[in-house]
Amino acid sequence: MSDRRTFLKTAMAGVALTTLGGGVSFAKNSLAFSDAAANAKPKLKLSFQEGTPPGKTLAEKFDYMEKHGVVGFEPGGSGLADRVVTIQNELKGRNIQVSAICAGFKGFILSTDDAVRQQCIDTMKEIIAAAGALGSVGVIIVPAFNSQVPVMPHTQATRDFLCEQFTLLGTYAAQHNTTVILEPLHRNEAFYLRQVADAASICRDINLPGVRCMGDFWHMTSEETSDMGAFLSAGPYLQHVHIASRRRRSMPGEDGDADNYIDGFKALKMLKYPHFVSFECGCKGDRETVLPAALQLLRAQWEKA
Amino acid sequence: MSDRRTFLKTAMAGVALTTLGGGVSFAKNSLAFSDAAANAKPKLKLSFQEGTPPGKTLAEKFDYMEKHGVVGFEPGGSGLADRVVTIQNELKGRNIQVSAICAGFKGFILSTDDAVRQQCIDTMKEIIAAAGALGSVGVIIVPAFNSQVPVMPHTQATRDFLCEQFTLLGTYAAQHNTTVILEPLHRNEAFYLRQVADAASICRDINLPGVRCMGDFWHMTSEETSDMGAFLSAGPYLQHVHIASRRRRSMPGEDGDADNYIDGFKALKMLKYPHFVSFECGCKGDRETVLPAALQLLRAQWEKA
Repeated sequence: MSDRRTFLKTAMAGVALTTLGGGVSFAKNSLAFSDAAANAKPKLKLSFQEGTPPGKTLAEKFDYMEKHGVVGFEPGGSGLADRVVTIQNELKGRNIQVSAICAGFKGFILSTDDAVRQQCIDTMKEIIAAAGALGSVGVIIVPAFNSQVPVMPHTQATRDFLCEQFTLLGTYAAQHNTTVILEPLHRNEAFYLRQVADAASICRDINLPGVRCMGDFWHMTSEETSDMGAFLSAGPYLQHVHIASRRRRSMPGEDGDADNYIDGFKALKMLKYPHFVSFECGCKGDRETVLPAALQLLRAQWEKA
Repeated sequence: MSDRRTFLKTAMAGVALTTLGGGVSFAKNSLAFSDAAANAKPKLKLSFQEGTPPGKTLAEKFDYMEKHGVVGFEPGGSGLADRVVTIQNELKGRNIQVSAICAGFKGFILSTDDAVRQQCIDTMKEIIAAAGALGSVGVIIVPAFNSQVPVMPHTQATRDFLCEQFTLLGTYAAQHNTTVILEPLHRNEAFYLRQVADAASICRDINLPGVRCMGDFWHMTSEETSDMGAFLSAGPYLQHVHIASRRRRSMPGEDGDADNYIDGFKALKMLKYPHFVSFECGCKGDRETVLPAALQLLRAQWEKA
């Protein structure tokens, strides 16, 4: 392991040297990438996690989602491989697609323990293969939660190692027509990766179609100074968005005036963001009234943005 | 020291808990803060460091700058206290203001050595007082260059400590009607703080008028995926901008098509950015022709933005 890391560190340092000093241009974002889609009016494609809609069965949940125009479904990654056929069957003939896959892997990629890292890679690969079979936009992954120790120190060498690991995972994901999606969290959950621009810079450095990032309005409330700045920094690397109320991570609208997503939605429109905005939140009030109200609020703010 | 840090860590953790979970709203950026200045056409206020213009004396340099419409002067911080009267006298009757003060402090604030941190604070205070006397927008500071060791580890506790130290420095700066300006650098110079959004989030958490951040197009070329995203994230915390050619840190324009600042300038216009864009760069060609060409290029791109 130590030999391998030393080699990789050296190799990655060479890459960094070349790109920083050698006149090799970085793939800078600009709004130009969206020119081809300039005439298409950007749509708000809403998505639910499995626990969000009412209903006891997948069929009941999907019925509810279709009735309310929710076109994305974000299942958890745990045990997904065994559910692929069931989900495929339930989605047949419906106007619902699998959006992202929410985590579900075991271990973590920045562990100092070889076995814990290997567990992460093995379980991620299983989820990635299932995600690909389901036509998912990608599998969400967090490099290290605060609770996950012992962890590699927050250094350039660790970042280089992370890029190398995601090069492998992203290559595997692309072979399955899907991606791995880096999710920044707020500091109380994961200090290591907290800002969308940081996740985007990792994607940029890796520069593979299978490595992407996301923004979660809930975490962004704590860590970003500007929703628009964050999403514009994500640019073409933005593969998924999570949404919740901004004070208590409940249904959008349950925190009143705090639940303003217009600045972020403006950026999504500027980017012609083609993917999903997916609910990841609890529910304080009566789901039967709060959930339709949340959908209405988001659609109204999207129109205003 | 350890007692003090433990106390501060606990105190700051309390703050984070309150702000993250307790319904206290963060001061989110929005473009609303610029509404009052909405009717003023944003101007490109260019600034030079002392070595940028030709001329042997300050008077000759200022003559050149006035002739070319350069309205800002960015002196180094080293020995600045002894030069305040000289600079004040030379600026009398001229259309030039002191922009930022470029570093010049000794030690570094994230040293594990009390004496090295104290040296940083003492020399910063001297420069801050001189900056205030000169009407400067602020004193640029880097928390830790890669070469500066031993350094505190990159953890939440260190970030909390940094916020506490900048609370003190920023309070002192405000007493002198100026600011301290956090500068993100690229990874080869300073891994600790590389992105404008990260610097802005530190300013937001501290929430004092004396603590601000900046963006340097040269470093941003390596570390940011979007100039616009980075500057919008800085928002009202953006106190200074550095500019250089984007491949070799030479005069803007000397790296040809790579020297495109329009996306960033658009963001500065959106923000009604009121401060300076200051040259920090070398010069490969003949200064007498390259320097006016650089000014012309930037003004043309500002118009296009």
